[in-house]
Amino acid sequence: MKIIVTGGAGFLGSRLIELLLRRLDAGEPPIPFDRIVSLDLAECPVADPRVSSVVGDVASPELLDREVDEDVLGIYHLAAVLSGGSEENFDLALRVNVDGTRALLEAARRLGTAPRLVFTSSLAVFGGDPPEVVPEEWAEQPDSTYGATKAVGELLVNEYSRRGHVDGRICRLPTISVRPGRPNSAASSFASGIIREPLNGERAVCPVPHATRMWLSSPRAAVANLAHALEVDGERIGPWRGMNVPGICVTVGEMLDALERIGGDQARSLVDDAPDRSVMDIVCSWPGEFEVQRMLELGFVRDRSIDRMIRQYVEDFAPGAGRPAGQDEAGAETA
Amino acid sequence: MKIIVTGGAGFLGSRLIELLLRRLDAGEPPIPFDRIVSLDLAECPVADPRVSSVVGDVASPELLDREVDEDVLGIYHLAAVLSGGSEENFDLALRVNVDGTRALLEAARRLGTAPRLVFTSSLAVFGGDPPEVVPEEWAEQPDSTYGATKAVGELLVNEYSRRGHVDGRICRLPTISVRPGRPNSAASSFASGIIREPLNGERAVCPVPHATRMWLSSPRAAVANLAHALEVDGERIGPWRGMNVPGICVTVGEMLDALERIGGDQARSLVDDAPDRSVMDIVCSWPGEFEVQRMLELGFVRDRSIDRMIRQYVEDFAPGAGRPAGQDEAGAETA
Repeated sequence: MKIIVTGGAGFLGSRLIELLLRRLDAGEPPIPFDRIVSLDLAECPVADPRVSSVVGDVASPELLDREVDEDVLGIYHLAAVLSGGSEENFDLALRVNVDGTRALLEAARRLGTAPRLVFTSSLAVFGGDPPEVVPEEWAEQPDSTYGATKAVGELLVNEYSRRGHVDGRICRLPTISVRPGRPNSAASSFASGIIREPLNGERAVCPVPHATRMWLSSPRAAVANLAHALEVDGERIGPWRGMNVPGICVTVGEMLDALERIGGDQARSLVDDAPDRSVMDIVCSWPGEFEVQRMLELGFVRDRSIDRMIRQYVEDFAPGAGRPAGQDEAGAETA
Repeated sequence: MKIIVTGGAGFLGSRLIELLLRRLDAGEPPIPFDRIVSLDLAECPVADPRVSSVVGDVASPELLDREVDEDVLGIYHLAAVLSGGSEENFDLALRVNVDGTRALLEAARRLGTAPRLVFTSSLAVFGGDPPEVVPEEWAEQPDSTYGATKAVGELLVNEYSRRGHVDGRICRLPTISVRPGRPNSAASSFASGIIREPLNGERAVCPVPHATRMWLSSPRAAVANLAHALEVDGERIGPWRGMNVPGICVTVGEMLDALERIGGDQARSLVDDAPDRSVMDIVCSWPGEFEVQRMLELGFVRDRSIDRMIRQYVEDFAPGAGRPAGQDEAGAETA
């Protein structure tokens, strides 16, 4: 039996696949799968005989109908056009984030087995003027195309769940920091760049005011939470399947202070302030903190501190990091 | 220049067209149109040389592309599969309420003129466990296919507005009572039936507990509010275009008491209680009251009392009603 991961070639997708395989290696995975299929525009980088990579358009109903077959035990739907890319290309965002999600839900519905389906959403579904700490029943009034298309995806996943076509689990992920590699099209890409580039001796630009509150999750905590989202009993989630995945609330100024503590004056001096209206318009509309007590009780985890998140990046990814990425998902707080 | 009304053959649509024509007759309509095009599966019943009726599938992109041309000054999108029908036919609800709305938005976008577009939504977008009085920023967690598809439509209208493709106005209408005619596929159809049938000497069934709180609007107030929604300055609405159209909060028991006051013991005795789980599952998940102060300040109106709403029905529609339907939209409270 297989698990499908759309976006399996991406950063979170490939790390999630690695974590699922480690759980399989450890024996008795909570979901009895024995192989993983990545659906993505690119080849999944995880080299393992239990992983197969289908390269193609994840919004294609034909591809989805072919791959979503009776062997499917669970589905992760991570593939999406991100915030910056969605703002630039409205039609592509609608096609991939809305039509692609619906095509996947239809393919899953045709199975008749109501497979578990984890859909990654984002705090970008919120906008307007949110309270300091956002409760679970706060209105989604997205200020961005990415947020709007993700909010539509959430409603579709919920409704297909309510009707018993899938067993949906919607994970509104915090901004992931610190990501390795190069900037991506997310408007929040700087939230990794202002730490990563200076630690690698490169200059970075901070496009938002230092008082901007960010809701952050390390890659380790995010991947651990995605694994948990497939495993948790749907009944415990309740009828509404939207979940604010735990993060920690940190201002950009606090991130820069932590950079200085860990990388020294020299690293800190490599960050230049250059306010960018197009980034601010998107990122500053996102809430900085969420009520997550119920999520922690459901077994989701969160990071302990921004310092620890930066040290994780150094351990896992910085040039000369000693051990393979994602060797464990420790360093996160359980309920 | 023309106004398009999808669903123009329906009860609200045809009364809205009549009201728009009366405003035109009175001179200087706030929006300088000179004709109205109804798009509906049925012929628009309003006989007036300024009204043309296009009969066809309102979810057809071809039909929409043909009719939404450079003469369009404003669009009302009222056509939808209602709550009972949506629950019965999921695919039809998705096709009409989601795909149809998107096709209309695309047709409007191609004009390049950002026409005003009024989209009727419903309190059915809410679900779960709403507070006694629902604030403007309460989460939409629909418990029905109708609510889910309307919530998706809202997000699309908002996003097309935010991007400047249309100037959208989303009217979440209360349950309309008292409607004339026969029951329709809305799960809330009883909210008219338990008044209308007894006043016409027929038996009616009450499928929900008497303590059920309903958020009601008379046809007159609803139509006046739809007319106002096209006229109001978009800047005054603000960036988020979702609006809870004012109604009044009345329990089903209070409706039956008012029926007795107006129709006497005999009318009241014609209502039989017969709890219906399928109706309760939908209707009892809807909120009973909303914060509407801002809406009243924007010039929207609401009814004064359930007694007055029932008397309006008798005046406008009951057998032997002396004057044409909707002669005026008085009897509603202004801000």
